[in-house]
Amino acid sequence: MKVDVAIVGYGVVGNGTAKILEEKKEILKKRAGVEINLKKVFTRNWNKKFEFPLKENQKANSLDEILNDKDIKIIIELTGGIDFPYELALKAIEKGKHIVTANKALLAEKGKDIFLKAEEKNIRIGYEAAVAGGIPIIRALREGLVGNKINKIYGILNGTTNYILTSMFKEGKDFKTALEEAKELGYAEADPTLDINGTDAAHKIAILASLSYGGFLDFSKVHIEGIEDINLMDIELAKELGYTLKLLAIAKSHNGEVEVRVHPTFLPSDHQLAKVDGVFNAVMVEGDSVGETMFYGRGAGSLPTASAVVSDVVDIAKSISLGVGREIEITSMNWEHKDLNLTKVSDFYTRYYVRFTVPDITGILSKVAAIFAKYDISIAAVLQKEKVIEKYEKISEKLVPLVILTHTASENNLQKAVKEIEDNNLTGAKTVIIRVEDEED
Amino acid sequence: MKVDVAIVGYGVVGNGTAKILEEKKEILKKRAGVEINLKKVFTRNWNKKFEFPLKENQKANSLDEILNDKDIKIIIELTGGIDFPYELALKAIEKGKHIVTANKALLAEKGKDIFLKAEEKNIRIGYEAAVAGGIPIIRALREGLVGNKINKIYGILNGTTNYILTSMFKEGKDFKTALEEAKELGYAEADPTLDINGTDAAHKIAILASLSYGGFLDFSKVHIEGIEDINLMDIELAKELGYTLKLLAIAKSHNGEVEVRVHPTFLPSDHQLAKVDGVFNAVMVEGDSVGETMFYGRGAGSLPTASAVVSDVVDIAKSISLGVGREIEITSMNWEHKDLNLTKVSDFYTRYYVRFTVPDITGILSKVAAIFAKYDISIAAVLQKEKVIEKYEKISEKLVPLVILTHTASENNLQKAVKEIEDNNLTGAKTVIIRVEDEED
Repeated sequence: MKVDVAIVGYGVVGNGTAKILEEKKEILKKRAGVEINLKKVFTRNWNKKFEFPLKENQKANSLDEILNDKDIKIIIELTGGIDFPYELALKAIEKGKHIVTANKALLAEKGKDIFLKAEEKNIRIGYEAAVAGGIPIIRALREGLVGNKINKIYGILNGTTNYILTSMFKEGKDFKTALEEAKELGYAEADPTLDINGTDAAHKIAILASLSYGGFLDFSKVHIEGIEDINLMDIELAKELGYTLKLLAIAKSHNGEVEVRVHPTFLPSDHQLAKVDGVFNAVMVEGDSVGETMFYGRGAGSLPTASAVVSDVVDIAKSISLGVGREIEITSMNWEHKDLNLTKVSDFYTRYYVRFTVPDITGILSKVAAIFAKYDISIAAVLQKEKVIEKYEKISEKLVPLVILTHTASENNLQKAVKEIEDNNLTGAKTVIIRVEDEED
Repeated sequence: MKVDVAIVGYGVVGNGTAKILEEKKEILKKRAGVEINLKKVFTRNWNKKFEFPLKENQKANSLDEILNDKDIKIIIELTGGIDFPYELALKAIEKGKHIVTANKALLAEKGKDIFLKAEEKNIRIGYEAAVAGGIPIIRALREGLVGNKINKIYGILNGTTNYILTSMFKEGKDFKTALEEAKELGYAEADPTLDINGTDAAHKIAILASLSYGGFLDFSKVHIEGIEDINLMDIELAKELGYTLKLLAIAKSHNGEVEVRVHPTFLPSDHQLAKVDGVFNAVMVEGDSVGETMFYGRGAGSLPTASAVVSDVVDIAKSISLGVGREIEITSMNWEHKDLNLTKVSDFYTRYYVRFTVPDITGILSKVAAIFAKYDISIAAVLQKEKVIEKYEKISEKLVPLVILTHTASENNLQKAVKEIEDNNLTGAKTVIIRVEDEED
């Protein structure tokens, strides 16, 4: 049995995918019992030099050449952006072609539309490559952990920001220097905005939340903070308290709601995720049966991402060869057939690292502590520096950092307390609030 | 569509499996689109108290009640040992019943027979629970990494020994004390022989090697060393050199052979696996496309193991509901249709930690180094202690430990060099040799 497939978008991941499909044709046939034939590839400009050159007869000059080819059963969508791949997906579904995509923005923002239309037409959508590159996390959630209620899923889903935070934490570099180095090494794109501001990680956690909790969510309501404003001072102060800073993407469910958020987060330094350094990704899944599991690997790059693309292509080609469609899937994206209600930011409960910038006089701590107590915020640790360490950014000589680590508190109360402290002129600069993921018994 | 299943063997994992199948019936139906009905359970003695009590009509009084029940399509085999489950498996296959098992000894030692017979009768064997408990590593290798040539797969596959080694490394306990504590905490069985001597980890890596390299192997030829003779001194000396001791199970392929071995191994302390502590398991998989990936979680316990059992039950029930058998499987255990050739111990190439016990006189190091050079063994680091630290076990006052860390060398040459050094009366006690997993460029 031979299944014809086509790639649309021939960039780094496209080249890697073609390379695996062509060079591993035999091994894939042995393992999956089906021959996958890369019949056509479409890209806007064939005049470039490609990492993996194609045969002339594989080059399509228009999208229609692929869409109208009845033999092509799977379209591997590897373009960027949202609008073009969205239109392509709808057309492919209309034509009865299955889709494999690495496009997290597309699925996070237009997933509901695409998955519902695919359901209608009995079309499969493979999206292993859209989250955490080569790590087979979708398969794990969809099949391996099928007997679990997912209590929580959280992880490091963006390699660029993890590289930057690792070099800030380990080498004491400031954000700008670390970002420049990441660009030089190819770990950050020329325009790294969507990585740095947390959107990329948010796209991925939105997909994981949809799959884990069985419904669609309104991406525009996901709470997202990036790492642009992270000050080295906070990384170094928290290190003294035993914490490491990561850009965490978190999804958990409670009271019929799903909490989805992306923000810089302090983790205890002995936490498995705290040990994930550089460009690596890792996802921690807490299931009610399995307990804690973690999946670690490369979240980006040509061949790691192509590895995930190919796993979906094989899976779908296999089902085509058996004459079945979506009915073969364990855990469809919409298994609860509902829209997920997202928890509002003010309803978050977590631990907090709060750095006030206060005058170096006695009595301040007791005033701050009194306001925290008023808002029912319990203090777990305090770190007050006698003298500002010189290498930190300029703080007026008369001001010092006062760090308070709280027990689990309400976001709403925390924000009110900080506002009251600032309104009372107890601080001399903007207060820094960073959430802490460190569960208490 | 309803699929009837039965459990044989009602111990901790059996109870956990029944609990998930009964309590999660609805969620499994929603996710997988198939109803799984736990029709019968067989155990030798129904007069005990069980963690998860069954309905009276679920209790089978004989195995035949299950084997002869035409409605039962899947037998979940959760007994111990090898002979009984082997016979059961053959009978189940004969009766056309699919099998899900957590029995690693059975598959590692009798797998060839079972898988070949299952192939003949179009029967599926689910064995996710046989390796690394709740971690979905079989699915990852079978499907998620299907586009990869697996260069190497290695990991911590036994929680008991990892607990012991962690408490030796972190708390400076000796082997016996750590073992006793593990027993008290329920992390070691009353008779922990198969864990301690490496057999359990070897069963698991043999299964992973078979799947990764597509054939069967002669388990009796797998190289196995346990942790019974590990001396705290070596853990502490290697710590000074930046290494952590783990019981590693390793499989890799080269020159048409597969190297499978289990032994205490030093890892660089910043290696991801070195950070896996206590009873946790973790498997590192190096694929040629995906690069380095790691899978981490609980390797044992009632619900974590049951989580894996249930994932196989759902998968197979799903294929039954679609009317298909083994043809649905991506990557069968025997996809290369061959027997694997195992590399002989003398052909291993790796790095070594060698601790000689030598007289505290000048000139010894140069003699030892000369013999290493003669056998083409390059020295990476030397640690010679002036004085024996008191807490180490008694070494005659005139003898001191001399540790040599080698670059990659031939096992054959290493053994010859050590023998020549001992034959030349340069040492005063048995030399300790521990392999080091630390790849060099």
